[in-house]
Amino acid sequence: MIPFSEITKIINTELNKLNWDKKPEGLYRPIAYVLSLGGKRIRPSLVLMACNLFSDKVESAIAPALGIEIFHNFTLLHDDIMDKAELRRGQPTVHKKWDENTAILSGDLMQIAAYQLIGKVDELHLKKVLDIFSETAAEVCEGQQYDMEFEHRENVSPEEYLEMIRLKTAVLLGAALKIGAIVGNANSKDANLLYEFGINLGMAFQLKDDLLDVYGDEQFGKKIGGDIVANKKTYLLISAQKLAKGADAKELEKWLKTDSENETKVEAITALYNRLEVRDICENKMQEFFEKSIDCLNRISVEAAKKIELRHLAEQLMSRKE
Amino acid sequence: MIPFSEITKIINTELNKLNWDKKPEGLYRPIAYVLSLGGKRIRPSLVLMACNLFSDKVESAIAPALGIEIFHNFTLLHDDIMDKAELRRGQPTVHKKWDENTAILSGDLMQIAAYQLIGKVDELHLKKVLDIFSETAAEVCEGQQYDMEFEHRENVSPEEYLEMIRLKTAVLLGAALKIGAIVGNANSKDANLLYEFGINLGMAFQLKDDLLDVYGDEQFGKKIGGDIVANKKTYLLISAQKLAKGADAKELEKWLKTDSENETKVEAITALYNRLEVRDICENKMQEFFEKSIDCLNRISVEAAKKIELRHLAEQLMSRKE
Repeated sequence: MIPFSEITKIINTELNKLNWDKKPEGLYRPIAYVLSLGGKRIRPSLVLMACNLFSDKVESAIAPALGIEIFHNFTLLHDDIMDKAELRRGQPTVHKKWDENTAILSGDLMQIAAYQLIGKVDELHLKKVLDIFSETAAEVCEGQQYDMEFEHRENVSPEEYLEMIRLKTAVLLGAALKIGAIVGNANSKDANLLYEFGINLGMAFQLKDDLLDVYGDEQFGKKIGGDIVANKKTYLLISAQKLAKGADAKELEKWLKTDSENETKVEAITALYNRLEVRDICENKMQEFFEKSIDCLNRISVEAAKKIELRHLAEQLMSRKE
Repeated sequence: MIPFSEITKIINTELNKLNWDKKPEGLYRPIAYVLSLGGKRIRPSLVLMACNLFSDKVESAIAPALGIEIFHNFTLLHDDIMDKAELRRGQPTVHKKWDENTAILSGDLMQIAAYQLIGKVDELHLKKVLDIFSETAAEVCEGQQYDMEFEHRENVSPEEYLEMIRLKTAVLLGAALKIGAIVGNANSKDANLLYEFGINLGMAFQLKDDLLDVYGDEQFGKKIGGDIVANKKTYLLISAQKLAKGADAKELEKWLKTDSENETKVEAITALYNRLEVRDICENKMQEFFEKSIDCLNRISVEAAKKIELRHLAEQLMSRKE
């Protein structure tokens, strides 16, 4: 099996080979910029790792892997416009560095570039891969729409939130794995198990993200409490809203109406989360999804030794500090 | 041969069958809205008509025809955001009726929906059609980028303008025809001739658009002079800028700096166009492209009688009043 570190290297090498030095520069430079900002490259790695479960050669999985990474970065680019985000991975977002029109159009082209890479899949698998990719891409848009709608809604149930993160985050991980399996010539049962592994891992991954915003360590990356300041409806907030009664409910309500960027709000809401024990609720939910994902992985019909890299990656994503 | 009127009916019937009654409504309703605004449906008709040259059955061409129409409407939707347009076919644009985020995300989903329809092409032709579609889609984005850049540039040469409209408008007509030919099992020589027919027709079509803005008849549709008021760099303006000397050059310069929405500007610039005879220049160029397109059509290896519908459509597009 190709170790994860090696997989990431392949991805980055291949990503760097893509040529964005084209005209008009105003359209292609922002794409090169976005892709140069880095990232964990989890999704393309999953494509290659899934392929590698069934095939020693992963070359055929490289194009769709890059396509999925470019699609993912396209969604970040357009989401940043919609969220009016100023920074992405510590650097100015495209609509800040250039302008909104550039961000819209470069994003549109990234989506096309993603499809061009998907189009390089062996013709034997092309239709299947293309259909999965398109269905997933549509679901990711649906997830983003729900996410935006939730920001303007007072009550979002935990179930609605979980469905939103399934669409916005989990399906693309599932699709990455399934596409990798397909180009690796896996049977459809195994390909579907990998999809379910990815869905459950993606759910756990997003819940981990929610947790890191509050209980992370600033030395590893993002500022703590960003979601709290922005009143972002995370699993923690939604659980707290559901559980808080009496004085707690009033306090939470008050803070959500306070447009305060200072640390008082972060401290107060964190204290409330602690009192309501929503950290445990979120961690338990995360653990539940993680275990489901491992169960799916275990049921795939290849020898256990081959699955170690994927299992390690899943564990790493759960114990990550950033 | 299926007559053009019948082809349009098929397209509209099939477009109406597409189901946008999905959730989240905030994402899908704007798509249904955009497609309900109508339009001449030229591009999907070209797909079917090209297919019909080589095959009595056009069923296999319907999905890619709809895909191309949806892609075209996606570009209009995103272009309208970028151009801050308030109206499209006399109705509020999506970013006006809803908001910009909705327009961005619904547009993104339309592009995916276009690819989903392309994905329905018979597997025998899928790779070829997908590659042409993606390459064309990228070119359309490039054309839009040049168009936006030209608005901020003082000097654009006629050659640069023609290359811009080739990308922004002509290639999609060419691709529509080529894709129709491919799914109709045409040989590659004929498919390429249809592409060239479409490119040249598209160029003539856009020059006709430029002419109609100034020399059209208001009773048939759009208000005359919209491009003039907006200082839009059309073939007329670019030709005038190239030809105007002395007092004419100064007058043109003055009007381009005048942010006037009144009729004086339109009248003055039209008078200048007349003096410089740029109408003739534009009409001659249009005629040149039209003749090239007909020449390509003539060289396609099917009997002349079968080409009558496409020839009529081309002639209609040249003599249209709106």
